[in-house]
Amino acid sequence: MREQDTDTPATDRDTLTVVHSAAELVVGPDDDVGVDVVEDGAFAAVDGTVVAVGSTPDVIAEYPLAEADSTVDAAGQTVLPGFVDPHTHALFAGDRSDEFVAKLRGATYEEILADGGGILRTVDAVREASDDELVSNLTAHLDAMLAHGTTTVEVKTGYGLDTETELRMLDAIDRAGSAHPVDVVPTFMGAHAVPRGMDTDDYVDDVVTEQLPAVAEQGIAEFCDVFCERGVFDAEQSRRILEAGREFGLTPKIHADEFAAIGGTDVAADVGAVSADHLLHTDATGRETLVEAGVTPVVLPGTAFGLGAAYADARAFLDAGHEVALATDFNPNCFARSMGFVATLASVGMRMTPHEAIRGITSAAANAIGRTDGTGTLRPGSPADAAVLDVPSATHLSYRFDTNPVSSVLKSGVVVHA
Amino acid sequence: MREQDTDTPATDRDTLTVVHSAAELVVGPDDDVGVDVVEDGAFAAVDGTVVAVGSTPDVIAEYPLAEADSTVDAAGQTVLPGFVDPHTHALFAGDRSDEFVAKLRGATYEEILADGGGILRTVDAVREASDDELVSNLTAHLDAMLAHGTTTVEVKTGYGLDTETELRMLDAIDRAGSAHPVDVVPTFMGAHAVPRGMDTDDYVDDVVTEQLPAVAEQGIAEFCDVFCERGVFDAEQSRRILEAGREFGLTPKIHADEFAAIGGTDVAADVGAVSADHLLHTDATGRETLVEAGVTPVVLPGTAFGLGAAYADARAFLDAGHEVALATDFNPNCFARSMGFVATLASVGMRMTPHEAIRGITSAAANAIGRTDGTGTLRPGSPADAAVLDVPSATHLSYRFDTNPVSSVLKSGVVVHA
Repeated sequence: MREQDTDTPATDRDTLTVVHSAAELVVGPDDDVGVDVVEDGAFAAVDGTVVAVGSTPDVIAEYPLAEADSTVDAAGQTVLPGFVDPHTHALFAGDRSDEFVAKLRGATYEEILADGGGILRTVDAVREASDDELVSNLTAHLDAMLAHGTTTVEVKTGYGLDTETELRMLDAIDRAGSAHPVDVVPTFMGAHAVPRGMDTDDYVDDVVTEQLPAVAEQGIAEFCDVFCERGVFDAEQSRRILEAGREFGLTPKIHADEFAAIGGTDVAADVGAVSADHLLHTDATGRETLVEAGVTPVVLPGTAFGLGAAYADARAFLDAGHEVALATDFNPNCFARSMGFVATLASVGMRMTPHEAIRGITSAAANAIGRTDGTGTLRPGSPADAAVLDVPSATHLSYRFDTNPVSSVLKSGVVVHA
Repeated sequence: MREQDTDTPATDRDTLTVVHSAAELVVGPDDDVGVDVVEDGAFAAVDGTVVAVGSTPDVIAEYPLAEADSTVDAAGQTVLPGFVDPHTHALFAGDRSDEFVAKLRGATYEEILADGGGILRTVDAVREASDDELVSNLTAHLDAMLAHGTTTVEVKTGYGLDTETELRMLDAIDRAGSAHPVDVVPTFMGAHAVPRGMDTDDYVDDVVTEQLPAVAEQGIAEFCDVFCERGVFDAEQSRRILEAGREFGLTPKIHADEFAAIGGTDVAADVGAVSADHLLHTDATGRETLVEAGVTPVVLPGTAFGLGAAYADARAFLDAGHEVALATDFNPNCFARSMGFVATLASVGMRMTPHEAIRGITSAAANAIGRTDGTGTLRPGSPADAAVLDVPSATHLSYRFDTNPVSSVLKSGVVVHA
């Protein structure tokens, strides 16, 4: 504990946290597409903001351990910036594990839909769920994410598909996030699917003229996302929704090229999307379009893994010198809440090095949700969000296929999981 | 606590454990290739052996909770037999994560070998490690396995490749296993690789005439395994080693058809192997050979995942009515210690249903290490080894891609992890 200064009221003192002696500490992005790593690493934080990072002797010379309010001895362990998960559908209700089994038995997507499965089944469950149930469901998932090192997560709506339920989802996201150490970033995604029996253009009208104004009035959502895909929303419908969202102050994001390339990357560039996500079928032209427009590519290897599909071509971006963000895409069809698992899939499935994958789940992911305050790094001035891993090097995050290596997590300089 | 019977000394009383109210409880294999599941399930165990299993009302009518020495309320959770991992190389030293990165960067197996990598690098590290370091390394891995629901694990030697170090490995396996709740089953695998600069036939002579007699004299090993593979030990060399091992009382196991089918399945059948493992290149004839000889097929999807190789054709066995055992193959080249992750890979990669996968990691896995005492089931007479999962159904073990759902583990009726 810090030595007591009896002349100063406790509330006026700065709170000093020092994490030290890490075998490796990842500071933030390097000049290429990887990360800068220091050995015998440490960082100091005052009132939740990083004030120093580097080798342990250097950091504790300036911020002695004896003066710290709390210290974390990370000897033999690895310290990373807290993970940022920039694409999830983590708020839902119901159980669709039976569809997972049906698919293993050979059922087609069409057969599952005919049996009442798919997104619209979750929509039914969410519409029937109480507000408290929605908050409780999301909170349990946030707990699991935090235990796996995630300190910031984006959560989309899109299981409401009507104004009332979309607003209820945003309210639940806000309530769960406000009460939880994990920072929760809300995205409105009324254009996630078309409700049963409704014409797509009519539904786009509803999103633009009914849902978006109400969402803007509510003031919770930060981003607007759309599922631009063959058989869902085409490029022009997607463009209309994202432009309308932008008018209401919501930054565009887009699901592009998951099953087919129907122009989502062009829409992303034209509307100034902060990210384009999935990109399983994006070609060289599409990649160039995104890169030139400054759109962060987000790839979701858990989804490809679950589908048995070919992974996105992350290497094409990386080899051209452009970072790639990674996300879980956690949803009832991809029950994955661990960014460490995503890092393993990124390495094994997409040949991303462990350091490229770590950038993908930290600073690149922060870019995919427009966080420019240093989130996803441990540089001075950044939020002091960190994951301490019980492994001897950063490489082990990808190298270990299954177990959760996270031993403790700090959010704003405070140990919130151990 | 059980009501005190003051006439009976405490040491004479039977110890009763009751696990109850599980949303689902897996009893053991069904008549096909899956498992029998009861809803609202319970089991009772006396002195570490299951005495009753079924619906909670039935079990607690016979074994009232008030009389139990310990109870586990599994409401909303799922109870499975403790997992059996029948194929690991869990005892090693050193760190080969750099080879994982080299492979991601495109290095070939030959290049890694030329850089001093591969199995022989681990052999060097094991030969240099102290006895205590070996015990400590294995113990840490057993802890992680237990936390993921494994209650019985096979561990192979094969990083010694000389009599002294192979015996030291067996001694370390015995020491770590004796002091740990997880049952550890020792396998001698001197024929894991050929030492540098040694002729393969000369090394086979050494295994047969020097190592095996010493291993038999030591009396720890239960099985003898060999890496029957192109460029390692051919079919006749493998046959000679396994037959010699059998003479010394060691039951044969075999690594067969991982990179090429060179006759390992015929050897397995001829020598009466308890299992044949890997089977990535086994054809219909090979499968029939194994099945007719009563050899349990063991598939290792973590290895295929790590290699980016095609998975073994588990469905061909299952569709013909034969169970398939699953294992982690945990080793420096496949850092996987969770059988739940293996179940997910078995489902996603090999289209095994969650129930088939659960059989693969419980009773079928017990068959692969010759356990006929009910290990891997919760039937009356079986060891009371169980994993309690914080999920609403057995299906969720495969359905959840990453997080460890195990909330507590019982070994011989005692809660050893919670």
